[in-house]
Amino acid sequence: MHQALEGIKVLDLTRVLAGPYATMIMADLGADVIKIEMPKTGDDSREFGPFVGEESAYFMSLNRNKRSMTLNLKSEPAKELFLEMVKEADVVVENFRPGTMEKLGLGYEDLKKINPRIIYAASSGFGHTGPYSNRAAYDGVVQAMGGIMSITGELGGKPTRVGPSIGDIAAGMFAAIGILAALQYRNQSGIGQKVDVAMLDCQVAILENAISRYVVTGDVPKPAGNKHSSIVPFEPFDTSDGEIMIAAGNDALWLKFCQAMGKEELAEDASFKTNALRNNNYNALRPKIAEVIERKTTAQWQEILDRAGVPNGPINTVDKVIEDPQVIAREMIVEVDHPVAGKLKMPGVPIKLSETPGSIRRPAPLLGQHTDEILKEILNLSGEKIEELKNQNIF
Amino acid sequence: MHQALEGIKVLDLTRVLAGPYATMIMADLGADVIKIEMPKTGDDSREFGPFVGEESAYFMSLNRNKRSMTLNLKSEPAKELFLEMVKEADVVVENFRPGTMEKLGLGYEDLKKINPRIIYAASSGFGHTGPYSNRAAYDGVVQAMGGIMSITGELGGKPTRVGPSIGDIAAGMFAAIGILAALQYRNQSGIGQKVDVAMLDCQVAILENAISRYVVTGDVPKPAGNKHSSIVPFEPFDTSDGEIMIAAGNDALWLKFCQAMGKEELAEDASFKTNALRNNNYNALRPKIAEVIERKTTAQWQEILDRAGVPNGPINTVDKVIEDPQVIAREMIVEVDHPVAGKLKMPGVPIKLSETPGSIRRPAPLLGQHTDEILKEILNLSGEKIEELKNQNIF
Repeated sequence: MHQALEGIKVLDLTRVLAGPYATMIMADLGADVIKIEMPKTGDDSREFGPFVGEESAYFMSLNRNKRSMTLNLKSEPAKELFLEMVKEADVVVENFRPGTMEKLGLGYEDLKKINPRIIYAASSGFGHTGPYSNRAAYDGVVQAMGGIMSITGELGGKPTRVGPSIGDIAAGMFAAIGILAALQYRNQSGIGQKVDVAMLDCQVAILENAISRYVVTGDVPKPAGNKHSSIVPFEPFDTSDGEIMIAAGNDALWLKFCQAMGKEELAEDASFKTNALRNNNYNALRPKIAEVIERKTTAQWQEILDRAGVPNGPINTVDKVIEDPQVIAREMIVEVDHPVAGKLKMPGVPIKLSETPGSIRRPAPLLGQHTDEILKEILNLSGEKIEELKNQNIF
Repeated sequence: MHQALEGIKVLDLTRVLAGPYATMIMADLGADVIKIEMPKTGDDSREFGPFVGEESAYFMSLNRNKRSMTLNLKSEPAKELFLEMVKEADVVVENFRPGTMEKLGLGYEDLKKINPRIIYAASSGFGHTGPYSNRAAYDGVVQAMGGIMSITGELGGKPTRVGPSIGDIAAGMFAAIGILAALQYRNQSGIGQKVDVAMLDCQVAILENAISRYVVTGDVPKPAGNKHSSIVPFEPFDTSDGEIMIAAGNDALWLKFCQAMGKEELAEDASFKTNALRNNNYNALRPKIAEVIERKTTAQWQEILDRAGVPNGPINTVDKVIEDPQVIAREMIVEVDHPVAGKLKMPGVPIKLSETPGSIRRPAPLLGQHTDEILKEILNLSGEKIEELKNQNIF
């Protein structure tokens, strides 16, 4: 079976999250991702819990499908070796603070000289230009500065951080898009380029309609809780054993929903006929729905509403997500067998390609597991030469 | 100036958010996106407020760089016309409920027959396979079912919806990645394929470490508020006029932070020397930091902490985001001049490419604005032939 990104060789200098997420997407789709790690320590996230035996589950779930070699890029012979590898590579990805690669003599301008076809992707907190460029950022900082926290949270409540590190993840996804777009251009032109992705920029890019709402109305968007800002009913309701999200997104669904509740009189009620009326009379309507929904369990309502064709869903905790029949049918939870840690469940590949399906072909690597293999394969080094390099303490 | 995706012709049948977000990414990078809309009504989001004059700001901020033609795909002559266009296109994108395109005789299998190179991308709530495939979903439903709500919210509080429609946006981003990966494969093989992206799958893919935490420890992750789960201090603190996010991510930063606060004694305190100790003694430590931070304004602390090199940031509301010097320097807020609505601010292009920078070359189209132009350009139809088709009421 072919893979979409087969034959694309990626030198991956990234650590922790944004960068490794980008290269995981590429590896899942078939790219040959060579993770280059500092000798002895490696990717910081190898130390992040929880652990299975000595192996970090955090690291393992972000680094499947990659190979690992160690290389101390601060030493001269290691830099030479890296530059030789750049000649054979398609993509270099890093998520250091801007300037770090330049100080090592390994910035884009340096690499481009020896391989003009190279695509150089950099993910950083604030990007490689602008007044904050040199500052470090963490996910929490860009979630705060980028506005997403200010519109997430309970109605009338405080700004709230998004649970997953969406500051990193969005940057990883946009970096992957940038690399693939640059590959498309290189296929036409033969020319590589630099892809500069900032976590803060990506937060602005995913703010959705909050910006247009503000610039048009002048009202500063605030946390809005779980209710849709303009559609009713479109929010969670308490059931007898939990909650259920109900999204009757238009008047036809409202009718179906009333029938499913056995409350035809609500559908007949002139105060609630249209979405505009349901919005205006929300305070009168909500309790009427709530008193019906709280009489049955979430599972009972799911069945009733699914049968009626009313969009709905339970508010799943993670244990429920990984057992959901649709999630399982779509192979969105996969079990990967690691030689040391054993079997570990992790998210599958969300991009389903008919001709070149993504796949998990190998578990996350041990630190430096493939150093010899990669040196032989890419640089055609002899075992003797490799031993000689090992004596220089660069691996 | 060249564009990365120049020459890629996209027939875009999508509405509202996930699909239009995917094609906006492609259009921003240079693809020729032809938005095909239902005559008279068009994309549903043309009716979503807020409006500038008669134009939807929501629609305008998601559809810049695209051209619009109308076509009633339920009529036979329109289908024929569409199939002729598919012969000349690289990509078709739709976000209908699964089965809709097949019923029209325009499913992937139909299109592939007339153009085996076509890349067909479908974004849907639950995907084109699996037991929930035929169900409709909205952003709120997949945020609920996919687990992200269960880990977002105040500590000890209720599951909370992420403010922006991350259910749609993540699907749009993964769809764009899938299309670009399929293009890379087609460049090698000459073969197109189907890209099937489900909003629910994408939610699972962005859960980050919540899944590994659960499968390893058995503890079901819950809303954790704004505090980092294992690093201290790494959360917002109240200032005299608001809040500031402070992220002292390691022991060296802790030392710098104590100095910046003028609280060297905290750095000396044996109870707080290491991150592990700061975690264990969190309840004793937090008030000591809080009482210092609340004495100055957010802006004062920003200046002090930036000078000290301690990652920090204000919790910006949208009005502050769009005035942030870094956001402005990175051109992440752009002003697009619309022929009817005038100037409108919207997010810029977050992928900064050195050789082929993305750009906003045209405002969002009026409904059917480019119908004639596209028919002439792609199908080489005469004005006479176009008039004839117009009489069939297909546009």
